[in-house]
Amino acid sequence: MSNELPRDKYKGISAAEFFYRNREIAGFSNPTRALYQTIRELVENALDATELYGVHPLIKLEISLDKDNPNIVTVKVEDNGIGIPKEEVPFVFGRVFYGSKYTLKQSRGVFGLGIKMAVLYAQITTGKPIYVKSSTPSSKEIYEYELVIDISKNIPIVLNEKVYKKRKKWHGTVVSLTIEGNWTGARRRIEEYIRRTALIAPYAEIYLKGPDTEIHFPRSTKVLPTPPEEGKPHPYGIDLEMLKSLISRTKKTTTVREFLLKTFDGVGKSTVLQFLEWANINGDVPLKKLTIEEVELLARKMREFPNWRRPRSITLSPLGEVLLIEGIKKTLNPEFVAAVSRKPSSYSGHPFIVEVGIAYGGEVPVVDRPLLLRFANKIPLLYDEGVDVSRKVVDNIDWNYYKIKLPAPLAVVVHICSTKIPFKGVGKEAIAEVPEIEKEIENAIKEVARKLRRHVSRMGRLFETAKRRTEIGKYIPEIARALSEITNLNQEIFEKALRKMLNKKVPTLERRVSL
Amino acid sequence: MSNELPRDKYKGISAAEFFYRNREIAGFSNPTRALYQTIRELVENALDATELYGVHPLIKLEISLDKDNPNIVTVKVEDNGIGIPKEEVPFVFGRVFYGSKYTLKQSRGVFGLGIKMAVLYAQITTGKPIYVKSSTPSSKEIYEYELVIDISKNIPIVLNEKVYKKRKKWHGTVVSLTIEGNWTGARRRIEEYIRRTALIAPYAEIYLKGPDTEIHFPRSTKVLPTPPEEGKPHPYGIDLEMLKSLISRTKKTTTVREFLLKTFDGVGKSTVLQFLEWANINGDVPLKKLTIEEVELLARKMREFPNWRRPRSITLSPLGEVLLIEGIKKTLNPEFVAAVSRKPSSYSGHPFIVEVGIAYGGEVPVVDRPLLLRFANKIPLLYDEGVDVSRKVVDNIDWNYYKIKLPAPLAVVVHICSTKIPFKGVGKEAIAEVPEIEKEIENAIKEVARKLRRHVSRMGRLFETAKRRTEIGKYIPEIARALSEITNLNQEIFEKALRKMLNKKVPTLERRVSL
Repeated sequence: MSNELPRDKYKGISAAEFFYRNREIAGFSNPTRALYQTIRELVENALDATELYGVHPLIKLEISLDKDNPNIVTVKVEDNGIGIPKEEVPFVFGRVFYGSKYTLKQSRGVFGLGIKMAVLYAQITTGKPIYVKSSTPSSKEIYEYELVIDISKNIPIVLNEKVYKKRKKWHGTVVSLTIEGNWTGARRRIEEYIRRTALIAPYAEIYLKGPDTEIHFPRSTKVLPTPPEEGKPHPYGIDLEMLKSLISRTKKTTTVREFLLKTFDGVGKSTVLQFLEWANINGDVPLKKLTIEEVELLARKMREFPNWRRPRSITLSPLGEVLLIEGIKKTLNPEFVAAVSRKPSSYSGHPFIVEVGIAYGGEVPVVDRPLLLRFANKIPLLYDEGVDVSRKVVDNIDWNYYKIKLPAPLAVVVHICSTKIPFKGVGKEAIAEVPEIEKEIENAIKEVARKLRRHVSRMGRLFETAKRRTEIGKYIPEIARALSEITNLNQEIFEKALRKMLNKKVPTLERRVSL
Repeated sequence: MSNELPRDKYKGISAAEFFYRNREIAGFSNPTRALYQTIRELVENALDATELYGVHPLIKLEISLDKDNPNIVTVKVEDNGIGIPKEEVPFVFGRVFYGSKYTLKQSRGVFGLGIKMAVLYAQITTGKPIYVKSSTPSSKEIYEYELVIDISKNIPIVLNEKVYKKRKKWHGTVVSLTIEGNWTGARRRIEEYIRRTALIAPYAEIYLKGPDTEIHFPRSTKVLPTPPEEGKPHPYGIDLEMLKSLISRTKKTTTVREFLLKTFDGVGKSTVLQFLEWANINGDVPLKKLTIEEVELLARKMREFPNWRRPRSITLSPLGEVLLIEGIKKTLNPEFVAAVSRKPSSYSGHPFIVEVGIAYGGEVPVVDRPLLLRFANKIPLLYDEGVDVSRKVVDNIDWNYYKIKLPAPLAVVVHICSTKIPFKGVGKEAIAEVPEIEKEIENAIKEVARKLRRHVSRMGRLFETAKRRTEIGKYIPEIARALSEITNLNQEIFEKALRKMLNKKVPTLERRVSL
């Protein structure tokens, strides 16, 4: 022991180098998964750039293989979105932790990471830069870039730049990347991903063109959900650091009461008075006069006060029951479907809405445990279902109570929207077990499951009736014969009358189902 | 549409701010999980600081609750490790993506993130700085720091610093953090975590002192596994960026052949010649004369060449079969135990070793699917088992083939060591499905399962024999009586002789089991 022990070597690395070294935590673990993830990131960016701004998405996805080496895959995505301002392009694609998604509103992107991971992956597998072409609606130019990332510094290196006058009114973004990928391995997942995207965004038109596939998903509705607005933080989600940073941005003379009223969601004039009394805090003190201990107290009291109003849901853009049912019908073609879009709820100051659809019978596959289709902020989640909160809830439901005997043709669709989806990883695949969200999912599933139970019960009764009908029907000729003997009338008259009676009292299955 | 569409707001955030915003992806999702994660990070750092340098770990963990508010928890960990150099302390604790673990050798820490997450969490929940006291073996001083992180800049802010002369020969580190935590909720997991740490590091002495608990895990062996050494990169793991960076650090005159020989693991004199011929590359060209296309080709060929030697395992520090069996016996107290430490293998240029133990009967709980205890680089993994590669492999084994009818008292212990564990997230809880690792786990489990089958078969035969013995035994008095009648000798003589004969031919269960 002692002085001969070796010393450690210390160093710092950039964010780009961190994710370059640990790309598997962002979903870039092998050529199959990396291709899937690249396409996801591009498609999600395209959808965000359109529907969040009231534009009906028109997305063209093109995948092509290198002639000499089928493991070299080029992915190209074009959208009709609002484009990226010229000066922002290099950073949006060439700097990890840079982007437009660090705001308080629902969007698919949140980490400022996905597209950069794809750029890094292209760079380390094929050495090819990303190609970007974009224009905003107000820009008079179209600009093209080719760039890579300086990994050790986490800054973009622009290799090519081209600007030209815009002739037509085009706006949007075209992105193309060439990576090492496994199309054969990823194809099924990619198609499934696009199919589910079409389910959750039925107002989007998507073209998928692959080496041996061409699918067109036309828009099935023109209705676009109301785009989300940017919101304010909610007191329940406040922490000391956030509070300090908000205070530092406030004017000198602002009082505590004014600050609370102006800065936060869920805080009205009467709530703020109630809070100040409850917390025993003087609201008339200028904010900047608070000591650090008083700021700590304020933060804690804000988190603990039980009576803030719920966060508003203007920051969210749920799909709604009608569109959800539409999507499910189109994708699963079930015998029965029901959906619910719950009222906004919140956890730690983040508003969220749970939407659940249930599909039964028809073309829904018969499964041992309910088929689960998960969505978060309209992103289909295809991996890591085993650790997702929705899987847990679905498995804990006593389906017998809802008259479902598994195996059964049963599918559950869960969609969660929030300004902050509690993803378990930066690959955005599984949602953590936040108690408030778990409870909402459970309530939502139970709500639609009750509708399903009524349907199944009615179907059960109808089948019973149909059986009775057949049974009774068997005796009609016998009875008719007896009556005919007694009355000396034609047997057929009685048979006809009896059948008419039976039909009236015990209707056929077909007639009832259509009710 | 058009010019009236809103513009996005773009911005960049620091690595500290990214993880501050997304702390749940690093395991800090709620007060229960955050307390567990904080303790993990501290204990793992303490173990790394000792055993990686040949020091027998002596770790003291102390958890205490605030008198007025039991949700304010102070965690203090002391180790007898090699300490942290004075000038490095602020960065090691106050800068995300800074540390000593960015090297090619097995260690518990890898991301340079965990402890900073704990500091951030303390800072945003209680506002308290981290306290650190440390000294290296060669230092003549002991130094104490109190610091927080400047989140927007990702740099440490030192609040207090104290240095004093070292009187005794102490070296090591003491760290103390005060966070919002849920001891009641986390207690069971924390105890389980320490218990499993004692299983996988039986040479460590650990004291756990909690509000209402005090557990001492003495070391059960003095044997310390050989510490890992730092290694070189392996050609299979090379990518274009890494190759460029390695080339930039090489002297001007170095040829391609010299570079390959000197820089990489798994490359010997004959392998390099074989490679150059196979790849059709001239090895005598000075490295810096290569065009970018030639460097790309070199990187690709290096990844594709089938005959590199496997990476060496000097960078790894497996536990070994003896210590693994020791640990399992102490923790699970089974009737039967077997273990295997497989030969080194590799994936994408990273060496790895799989170690598997199997335990059966005794105090192993009877379970529907085999109980699984997972470890990675000697870290116990307690969460997200559902998406771990080991769970998948264990569930896919046909246990009937090994004469195990589930439910059964069966436990499987899987330990993976590597210079690069393919964790699925920065919370270090689940390992991804890397085919090479999956295969090795499968082979290892089958190897120990075969031993278990022999044991179960033998036990089965013994039970059969015991049954036969009882059956035969029943007839002894009868036969003895008959013989006694025929021979006119005392019946007891025959009975005694017959029992002796039976005992010899059909031994008792007890005697055989102890073989």
